[in-house]
Amino acid sequence: MNTDTVYSELTLKTGAKLVLLVLDGLGDLATPEQGYLTPLEAAATPNLDTLSKNSAQGRMLPVAPGITPGSGPGHLALFGYDPLEFQVGRGVIEALGLGLELKPGDVCARANFATLDAKGIVTDRRAGRIPTETCERLCAMLSAKVKKIGETQVIIKAGKEHRFVVVFRGKGLEGPLTDADPNREGLPIPIAKPRDPKKAGQKKMAKLIADFYKVALPVIAKEKPANGFLMRGIAHQPHIPLFQDRYMLKPAALAVYPMYKGLAQLVGMKKIEGPQTIKEQFERYLAEYNNFDFFFIHYKYTDKFGEDGNFEAKKKAIEELDTALPILMQKKPTVLAVTGDHSTPCLIKGHSWHPQPAMLHSAFSGSDKLDRFTETGANRGSLGIFEAKYLIRLMQANARMFDKFGA
Amino acid sequence: MNTDTVYSELTLKTGAKLVLLVLDGLGDLATPEQGYLTPLEAAATPNLDTLSKNSAQGRMLPVAPGITPGSGPGHLALFGYDPLEFQVGRGVIEALGLGLELKPGDVCARANFATLDAKGIVTDRRAGRIPTETCERLCAMLSAKVKKIGETQVIIKAGKEHRFVVVFRGKGLEGPLTDADPNREGLPIPIAKPRDPKKAGQKKMAKLIADFYKVALPVIAKEKPANGFLMRGIAHQPHIPLFQDRYMLKPAALAVYPMYKGLAQLVGMKKIEGPQTIKEQFERYLAEYNNFDFFFIHYKYTDKFGEDGNFEAKKKAIEELDTALPILMQKKPTVLAVTGDHSTPCLIKGHSWHPQPAMLHSAFSGSDKLDRFTETGANRGSLGIFEAKYLIRLMQANARMFDKFGA
Repeated sequence: MNTDTVYSELTLKTGAKLVLLVLDGLGDLATPEQGYLTPLEAAATPNLDTLSKNSAQGRMLPVAPGITPGSGPGHLALFGYDPLEFQVGRGVIEALGLGLELKPGDVCARANFATLDAKGIVTDRRAGRIPTETCERLCAMLSAKVKKIGETQVIIKAGKEHRFVVVFRGKGLEGPLTDADPNREGLPIPIAKPRDPKKAGQKKMAKLIADFYKVALPVIAKEKPANGFLMRGIAHQPHIPLFQDRYMLKPAALAVYPMYKGLAQLVGMKKIEGPQTIKEQFERYLAEYNNFDFFFIHYKYTDKFGEDGNFEAKKKAIEELDTALPILMQKKPTVLAVTGDHSTPCLIKGHSWHPQPAMLHSAFSGSDKLDRFTETGANRGSLGIFEAKYLIRLMQANARMFDKFGA
Repeated sequence: MNTDTVYSELTLKTGAKLVLLVLDGLGDLATPEQGYLTPLEAAATPNLDTLSKNSAQGRMLPVAPGITPGSGPGHLALFGYDPLEFQVGRGVIEALGLGLELKPGDVCARANFATLDAKGIVTDRRAGRIPTETCERLCAMLSAKVKKIGETQVIIKAGKEHRFVVVFRGKGLEGPLTDADPNREGLPIPIAKPRDPKKAGQKKMAKLIADFYKVALPVIAKEKPANGFLMRGIAHQPHIPLFQDRYMLKPAALAVYPMYKGLAQLVGMKKIEGPQTIKEQFERYLAEYNNFDFFFIHYKYTDKFGEDGNFEAKKKAIEELDTALPILMQKKPTVLAVTGDHSTPCLIKGHSWHPQPAMLHSAFSGSDKLDRFTETGANRGSLGIFEAKYLIRLMQANARMFDKFGA
């Protein structure tokens, strides 16, 4: 029997309020250079410390041992979806990152402006990294000219420098396709082909891409240096069961960065717009407390400073969140989980495979008798090291949302 | 999506050097008789201690909770192959243990000399445990008489006392067969039959076994007490994907005992012959450093003394390895894993199911702030308790051999 089915059959509706507080890229490494302390250990966190005394701790594998996740798989796991089963294409993630609101069935592609010679050979895959303003102007030109291909709507949105995203919205479209990108200079733009030629949706999509090139290339043919473009990661938004149906919880997302809003929307969470700081996010949680059962609150800066390798700034970002935490606790949720979507160690300056620490606080979490919430403490907690996709199940259990299994 | 496929698709080629140092049967139990110390805890291990400060620790399940592995499954797991998926027959393991070099498709059988009465009834399944010299003489007689059956080559090799191994090398042979062994006295030798009568290779093999009995039994018919023999575990060498293809690492094995060389060869590792002590093994590693990417270094004595129930000797064996460790560290590998293939507690005098401790050392392993490498310390490490088959994936991750999964 499938575990998800078991959970689903045991789920009870309660009035519980669940909060998932994600400090993006929270996990880190203890190194001799920093006196064997991680940023979380070095930070002054009186409010997390208080919670810790009455919490359970553990560490979470975002995907599988040794695998470093991107933000997509990292968050899908936190939302309780197996990231190996529910894979989201690069085009979709890019579109979400640019703030595009996707609909089920949308096919997205990452695109680059590029330079072509007279014979159509790619001479610069990034068109000399044109300024963002140029990219925006070119995208506006393309958007003005190509609004539809047949019955399919075409949405074009500029990103940074030479990057943009194209979304195809219509019936019966499907990915993935091969890339319309030679992946190196000196070759023409290859034709995007169905990965599975038996699938009608992929064949239809391949024809759409070809048609798009036919109408779009002439629009920018006289531009210099960006007289062409490449398309990659052409895939549709996967079918993902709705969060609310799966967990019997009405979910809201309090995130500042577009990608995380987008990932939350992918599973059907309601985006709450407005708050820009963690203090404002917590205040908005108080205001919305009665309107939702589940709050996903996303804090970006731990990841950002981890990516910069800036230990002090990551530490301070944790302290800033800790300082704001009493606002959240004014309306104590039934269950509060504090964790990351993955580790972003300052030493690595990027995402990593190291299990992120997790703390689970509820009237029924028990106490692991740990004075602080840290990586080292979490190693010794009662939750052990577990797959991140189970965190939400533990939150539901702590909210008494599961009936007994068997007699 | 299959996890092995994910790992495989994410694998990058790097110049990393990975060392898997296996102290066979390392894990042990803390008992009041030994002041609640395991041999690893009681041993003086200054060099392992130094490594420990900058390492991650955990404990590994060789197969599944409560399952005690033989050396075959124990090592297959360490080499990253699921021991429940890749099962190696007893005949193959015995052949490897006797130093026979097997080829893909070889069918191996464990055999015993036995005593038969005039009617062919087995009266002693072990022929009174004849001396090894007698066994060697009888095997030589059989080898001289039975070199081939049809197109199939027959290789006979004596083991200890009444034990020997028969290898059939030819085309289209397949196991497993039922045993040609009544498993008790008072019955005749049963005919070995295909486990799956639909498989042509098994049928062919069953006929070969019957033919082998026809020509071999008369050769020793006048012997006393060993005038017969039994055959068990008749199976072919399983198809195992090559280590080098699976991990993009060129592997070498530095082992002294034939079985471990054989297990390494089974996955396509290059056997390095010569070294007899751990010091010599480490020195040879230095000499071969540039020729391989992955070194499996096997140390037998921790298991041997565990099997003897000799706590002091096991402790000293650990100390001897620790003393030699600085030789290895003259050329620091990118990643060093120190562990066992299973536990062999002195209390049990045999292999056991207790998870073995593992220590992972690299520039990116982080520090679990443990001053020593011990069973109790490993319980508190950031690796948690995990399936042994993932160790190599963690080694690859620490060598930065995996691309990010998803965007």
